[in-house]
Amino acid sequence: MTDKTENPEQLVQSLGEKARRAATTLAALSTEEKAKAIRAAAQAMRDDKDAILAANAKDMEAASDLPAAMQDRLKLDADRLTGIADAADSIAALPDPVGELIKTWDQPNGLTFERRRVPLGVVGIIYESRPNVTADAGLLCVMAGNAAILRGGSEAVHSNRALLAAIGKGLRSAGVPEEAVQLVPTQDRAAVGAMLKAAGLIDIIIPRGGKSLVARVQEEARVPVLAHLDGICHVYVDKDANPDMAREIAVNAKMRRTGICGAMETLLIDEAAVDMAPGIIRALLDEGCEVRGDVGVKGMDERVKPATAEDWDTEYLEPIVSAKLVSGVDGAIAHIAEHGSHHTDSIVTGNQQTADTFLGTVDSAIVMHNASTQFADGGQFGFGAEIGIATGRLHARGPVALEGLTTYKTVVKGSGQTRPA
Amino acid sequence: MTDKTENPEQLVQSLGEKARRAATTLAALSTEEKAKAIRAAAQAMRDDKDAILAANAKDMEAASDLPAAMQDRLKLDADRLTGIADAADSIAALPDPVGELIKTWDQPNGLTFERRRVPLGVVGIIYESRPNVTADAGLLCVMAGNAAILRGGSEAVHSNRALLAAIGKGLRSAGVPEEAVQLVPTQDRAAVGAMLKAAGLIDIIIPRGGKSLVARVQEEARVPVLAHLDGICHVYVDKDANPDMAREIAVNAKMRRTGICGAMETLLIDEAAVDMAPGIIRALLDEGCEVRGDVGVKGMDERVKPATAEDWDTEYLEPIVSAKLVSGVDGAIAHIAEHGSHHTDSIVTGNQQTADTFLGTVDSAIVMHNASTQFADGGQFGFGAEIGIATGRLHARGPVALEGLTTYKTVVKGSGQTRPA
Repeated sequence: MTDKTENPEQLVQSLGEKARRAATTLAALSTEEKAKAIRAAAQAMRDDKDAILAANAKDMEAASDLPAAMQDRLKLDADRLTGIADAADSIAALPDPVGELIKTWDQPNGLTFERRRVPLGVVGIIYESRPNVTADAGLLCVMAGNAAILRGGSEAVHSNRALLAAIGKGLRSAGVPEEAVQLVPTQDRAAVGAMLKAAGLIDIIIPRGGKSLVARVQEEARVPVLAHLDGICHVYVDKDANPDMAREIAVNAKMRRTGICGAMETLLIDEAAVDMAPGIIRALLDEGCEVRGDVGVKGMDERVKPATAEDWDTEYLEPIVSAKLVSGVDGAIAHIAEHGSHHTDSIVTGNQQTADTFLGTVDSAIVMHNASTQFADGGQFGFGAEIGIATGRLHARGPVALEGLTTYKTVVKGSGQTRPA
Repeated sequence: MTDKTENPEQLVQSLGEKARRAATTLAALSTEEKAKAIRAAAQAMRDDKDAILAANAKDMEAASDLPAAMQDRLKLDADRLTGIADAADSIAALPDPVGELIKTWDQPNGLTFERRRVPLGVVGIIYESRPNVTADAGLLCVMAGNAAILRGGSEAVHSNRALLAAIGKGLRSAGVPEEAVQLVPTQDRAAVGAMLKAAGLIDIIIPRGGKSLVARVQEEARVPVLAHLDGICHVYVDKDANPDMAREIAVNAKMRRTGICGAMETLLIDEAAVDMAPGIIRALLDEGCEVRGDVGVKGMDERVKPATAEDWDTEYLEPIVSAKLVSGVDGAIAHIAEHGSHHTDSIVTGNQQTADTFLGTVDSAIVMHNASTQFADGGQFGFGAEIGIATGRLHARGPVALEGLTTYKTVVKGSGQTRPA
């Protein structure tokens, strides 16, 4: 499948040119044509179940020495494959953002202006061992009218090739070029470097994976990147919070799932809320969460461990939380400005004015009032699917789904207008 | 003014930290507070007229050996300074995009979502010899709630410093931190390199100037860049075009101003429109435009020079146009896909279906129907001012004005919701 004679730049060049041609075709397809092709790809994955699971078994065999967590991410079985195919069907059912009239206006000279949503073009996805990304990310790009160039982890190489073969068959059967979703055929790491520098060939790169992958992509990329490096999310409990609500939100934000980027990593408590603070800290400890507190928090329960300076800048992704007393909402805002990662931060308070100060001032992609940070997710936002969460300031901010995979053009309509000198 | 002990990275670090603090203040200001500060800056430039013109005279003296065109860009006089101050007043009168509720939706669990427009943060502007950019770009950033770090050309160093001193005085008098608009105090070119790599300190870089500047910025930048490298704009005259309209649009698109990025560089004529083609070519020649044509066009007038391969990829910015016969709208679309720069392309036709094909398929920031490409300008779009035109696909596409200098955050409002397992 891989052409050994090509160097990485030539390889990405040829993938990029095929992708651009496919993207031009995709941009002209109707919503139903795209949906039909995606449903056909879903069915092809069901039909090729045996081949896909056999390929995955090869990957699992080679992965026998890898950590259990990685093996679990890599593993496919009949249920998981059905889940992947069903997810594809739900992508096909999402509202199509392409063609949307974002705004329209006119000028006294009679020119009318229409800002219309169009596909981004060619999307590069660089990911690790989860084979489901091959279908989820690839087909989400297609639904938004984009071509995708996928570079999966080497552990999943056989699974990804089998999934892609099915997807390509499905797309082709619906009259969509299979180059709409391509897999980089080599595991040579230099191919990733070539993708990151392929400005003009690839319009945007979305890394899906651990911090080291995202960091490398952000450091090396010449192509725009949508990503988040850290999810250091905060919950601030204000003195005017309902104690039960504050406790429930704090426990859920940390403990529902500790490994997701929207999990709370630091709990900030108003020093004027000392009455409710111990109950929240104990609830976290009772749930089996390690609490690393500042002096004020340490005094609340002997199980609290002392926090060190680096705790405030640490994304644990584990049942560990750092906790600190701050002087009101301004203290919380100042702490988040210094230690936050512009991802998701939540305030719990019954005071609307205090909430508005927090929501207006905290400079994060997502700010919440009286809600758990674990809602920081495209599905929970009602986007139906998500390709990632972006914490940068440009283009798309927060959960990135179909709309984040589009851009716009301005259509100017006249009746012969020329510009006066 | 410049601290010789600082290396460029330290310098940009300290400028960036001051800018971030100012941006936090600016983000919280009301529309009227921002407008008042900008009007005060405009008045301060009027009040400091003598100092500014004296500083400009110094620059002009040092520039005596520079090309006349560059001296003209550099030159300030009473009228031009009044124009700069009046432009600042009109920026203060623009509608404020910050705070706009872009969209709102909710979920069955009772969470409500608000996508709100917020400032980008810190904007870096790198420009050449036009001192008016110091006021125009700097104050446009302020109106959108951003802090600006300006790096002007060395030829304009005295003019820029004098303008900035007045602007800072004006802002300060209205209670806005003067660090809202800063000028890089050294002409050391390494400072530009440091700006381009200042990810996290500078949120976006906007280069204003010639192709070599933009190319360097796009090549070196680690910070997102909004820019256009080329403006190779096309006008396609379809067989169903009104001959007079086609001639007037072609002549205006090329000749009204040949030096702007929206000027037509290539004229594409439907080979089925041969009846009207010679009239258009002659009109351009009669206006003093050099026409470089393919075989078909060459036969229309002896004054037509033969086009070479590179003409189709050349932005002349002069009274020169390349012209070619194409096979209908598909031929035009194919030529633009191969040679265009994703800036502005226009079709002249009376056939709505042909127009829709062109407008829908041509992948440019701006596509036009029956209008001159010279309208590709923020002012002509009704934006009131423009900081540049972007031909990339992300964030802002086409003329970039106040809205392009903003981003959004999602505000999630709950009543104690926690996410179910």
